[in-house]
Amino acid sequence: MGNREFNRKTPLLNYKVIASLMGVLLILNGIFMLISLLISWYYKTEHWDALLISGLIAVSCGSLAFYLGKGHELRKQDKSSKKEELKKKDGFMIVTLGWVLMSFFGCLPYVISGEIPSLTDAFFETISGYSTTGASILTDIEAVDKGILFWRSLTQWIGGMGIIVLTVAILPILGIGGMQLFVAEAPGISPDKLQPRIKETAKRLWWVYLGLTMVEMVLLMFGGMDLYDALNHALTTMATGGFSTKNTSAADMSPYIQYVMIVFMFLAGMNFTLNYFLFKRKFREIWENEEFKAYLALVIFSTVIVAGVVYSTSFNSNEKIFRDSLFQIVSIITTTGYVSANYMEWPSLAIMWVFILMFIGAMAGSTAGGVKLVRHILLFKNTTLELKRQLHPSAIIPVRFNNNAVTENIIYNVLAFIVAYIFVFGIGVLILSGLGLDFNTSLGAVATSLGNIGPGIGSVGPVDNFAHLPAASKWILSFLMLLGRLELFTVLIIFTPSFWRKY
Amino acid sequence: MGNREFNRKTPLLNYKVIASLMGVLLILNGIFMLISLLISWYYKTEHWDALLISGLIAVSCGSLAFYLGKGHELRKQDKSSKKEELKKKDGFMIVTLGWVLMSFFGCLPYVISGEIPSLTDAFFETISGYSTTGASILTDIEAVDKGILFWRSLTQWIGGMGIIVLTVAILPILGIGGMQLFVAEAPGISPDKLQPRIKETAKRLWWVYLGLTMVEMVLLMFGGMDLYDALNHALTTMATGGFSTKNTSAADMSPYIQYVMIVFMFLAGMNFTLNYFLFKRKFREIWENEEFKAYLALVIFSTVIVAGVVYSTSFNSNEKIFRDSLFQIVSIITTTGYVSANYMEWPSLAIMWVFILMFIGAMAGSTAGGVKLVRHILLFKNTTLELKRQLHPSAIIPVRFNNNAVTENIIYNVLAFIVAYIFVFGIGVLILSGLGLDFNTSLGAVATSLGNIGPGIGSVGPVDNFAHLPAASKWILSFLMLLGRLELFTVLIIFTPSFWRKY
Repeated sequence: MGNREFNRKTPLLNYKVIASLMGVLLILNGIFMLISLLISWYYKTEHWDALLISGLIAVSCGSLAFYLGKGHELRKQDKSSKKEELKKKDGFMIVTLGWVLMSFFGCLPYVISGEIPSLTDAFFETISGYSTTGASILTDIEAVDKGILFWRSLTQWIGGMGIIVLTVAILPILGIGGMQLFVAEAPGISPDKLQPRIKETAKRLWWVYLGLTMVEMVLLMFGGMDLYDALNHALTTMATGGFSTKNTSAADMSPYIQYVMIVFMFLAGMNFTLNYFLFKRKFREIWENEEFKAYLALVIFSTVIVAGVVYSTSFNSNEKIFRDSLFQIVSIITTTGYVSANYMEWPSLAIMWVFILMFIGAMAGSTAGGVKLVRHILLFKNTTLELKRQLHPSAIIPVRFNNNAVTENIIYNVLAFIVAYIFVFGIGVLILSGLGLDFNTSLGAVATSLGNIGPGIGSVGPVDNFAHLPAASKWILSFLMLLGRLELFTVLIIFTPSFWRKY
Repeated sequence: MGNREFNRKTPLLNYKVIASLMGVLLILNGIFMLISLLISWYYKTEHWDALLISGLIAVSCGSLAFYLGKGHELRKQDKSSKKEELKKKDGFMIVTLGWVLMSFFGCLPYVISGEIPSLTDAFFETISGYSTTGASILTDIEAVDKGILFWRSLTQWIGGMGIIVLTVAILPILGIGGMQLFVAEAPGISPDKLQPRIKETAKRLWWVYLGLTMVEMVLLMFGGMDLYDALNHALTTMATGGFSTKNTSAADMSPYIQYVMIVFMFLAGMNFTLNYFLFKRKFREIWENEEFKAYLALVIFSTVIVAGVVYSTSFNSNEKIFRDSLFQIVSIITTTGYVSANYMEWPSLAIMWVFILMFIGAMAGSTAGGVKLVRHILLFKNTTLELKRQLHPSAIIPVRFNNNAVTENIIYNVLAFIVAYIFVFGIGVLILSGLGLDFNTSLGAVATSLGNIGPGIGSVGPVDNFAHLPAASKWILSFLMLLGRLELFTVLIIFTPSFWRKY
């Protein structure tokens, strides 16, 4: 993996392997479109042809890329000469380019069917899907073709799968943002012999992901939801995506269904390794996880505060106040973004609480976006320890997490991540203000896009959508969703001069 | 200074020395009140007696504290036994307690004269003075007694003196927030032999401070301002305080006077060591200072952007648009807080720009509050370097500032500071929202108080004041002004359990 092995003859990036892998991704993307086609046929919807054409385009382009990259050499990779070995830079490029390319091809069903004729809007909706954000430009969701709508939900579920493999396998190798910590927690993985076990772990967690999706679907149907809605909502819950097939999101659903969604949003916001432990009944491992305890405590504490504040002004029953508060809190913390009540009508403190939760995020290793709790825990600990260090300058006091001392490199990395997050947030709100969005809408739209949540505040609040924003701002927000989803550095690093230098 | 020297018999803090020093501060405070009394007599104002009584109370209480602390032992400090030596913990306590005590006694003239009868309001106004914030609860400033109003301006000037000695002498010893960096830049100071030279340096910088105040006063009078207003505005400019004797702040002043204020706000936002260099005509040292270059660039860049945006909607002359933009930008960056135009009426981008500038601050070693530019520079550099480090994991790439490698300890410290700043900001806006303030007002009031600026956004905007806020929120904001002014850690450290443990 060493960069020193480069010489004049070695290209900057391993373009062939990159092309091959992009080809594989596009072919998979096309296959998923053809799966949507089955749904379209089953429900005899109008725009099945858009899915068929899109799927064929994606598979064809994918095959072409695979051929151009001489994909057959890919298999030889392990045994062949160093030339075919993937380097760190290739990794950054593959992940970023992969997500962008998927999003461009993912637009096709919307554009070809005419359900979302504008490319800007279609791209926004697609990357909102793949990034599991859930921000939407659709004003009348229920009028959209059922096949296309299923494709929309599926983009989130695919995004969720992508995130799991990214977090478990790719980011730790690339060394992004303290994710090493999570890896140390993954079952059967030691950082030393990571690569051989990647496939195994990713597969195991994918099974957990698929299993939870199926269970939720069944439980939703048990509550009276039809197969189609149950399937769609199960797909978008487990991805912490938040796309709904209903215009009012979860607002008109029964209490039972809302509680089911709360439980599965919560599970989706958990490190998937812990969900695996849950499946294996290893409850002790879950309970002893420091990040999990913080996650649970945050949900409970936030719900108590918000329910208390809402109680003072609401005429609803106590149960409904509790349920509405819990639902919105879990939806925002897990960055899902379903809505069962309009929090913009709540008292000032509750709105501010929701806004600040947009910067917290759930557990690392989940499908949730945002900063993630583990980073906040490390930063908070480091800051309180710094106060101690000031009193005892000669003492060496490391940050501890799950009973292990955290290395300085990880702290540095996390701190750099936070600074980058704030910096990107600042630039984002300035650009959106410059495009004419008002103060609150700018803050809300950037916070929710960068955190991969969905609803914001201001004119992009929980009962609004993103349709009315100027086109330029939609592209900016799309980029922010990508940045947030790929932990910032994966994308930002490509824009540094060092990336494009050979040494 | 080692904490290990403590034993059971040594008290936690050196209470006697603390009491003596509090006594000295109160006596000085009283003397300044008596100076205000002279102004009151000169202008034959009604409430001279309030200043006399307050001054006598402060001097008496100060003398009592000095006596109780057996102040005579203070002088022996250097030669006497270790017992009388000041320890780090004493330092934190002296600075925090000193600022709070000064603020409580500084209320007296307002309360006794009845100009600000409520203790809450009087305390808010006083700590807004000593912290050089400039947020005010006065609704009709021009109706206030001239003697009392002079005292109000003087609190800011005293605060500015306090900040200079704090930054040059005290904080570096306590090791707060990367301030060591500034010290390394101070003339004739090397961190090794710091203590013997403290007095010398502080005095030198006080002369610069006093000198600049006098020069500004003369220049303001040259523009037609009367002695009283010129004196008051000079006092509050150099402290980057921003209290004005006019209801409309600087809005009705002539262009010449506004330009003079711009120049002196800019100087007050400069590291005072650089002002000393300016006086010594060592322009090269100023120009080669990295933080200065960033400061200048930020002012120019911000003015260009804001003036450009305002130009698109304003019917004013180009010169006035430029001047208004420059004035507001310099006023916010330097955390002064004078107002010559209502930025809340500007386009969205300009308001957002002003809001974000509230988190930047001017140079370290100036009288400006807030985060300070040097911290942003270090964090930004560290983050871009982190991107480089990801590509070259084995390379050791230190952050450089003014051509020196910055130690890891300083980076750690700065990062902990930023996290604490954000955390305090978050808690602050939540509490204020809980007290019923709307979203924008909460954000604006906390940002401006913690950054020691003055005007905020929302209902505490540039043409509003803080009078209408609920009492509890005024106490919270007062505490935030103190926190911001004392670089957070000086105060926060007192609330940690480690502080109150003997070992």
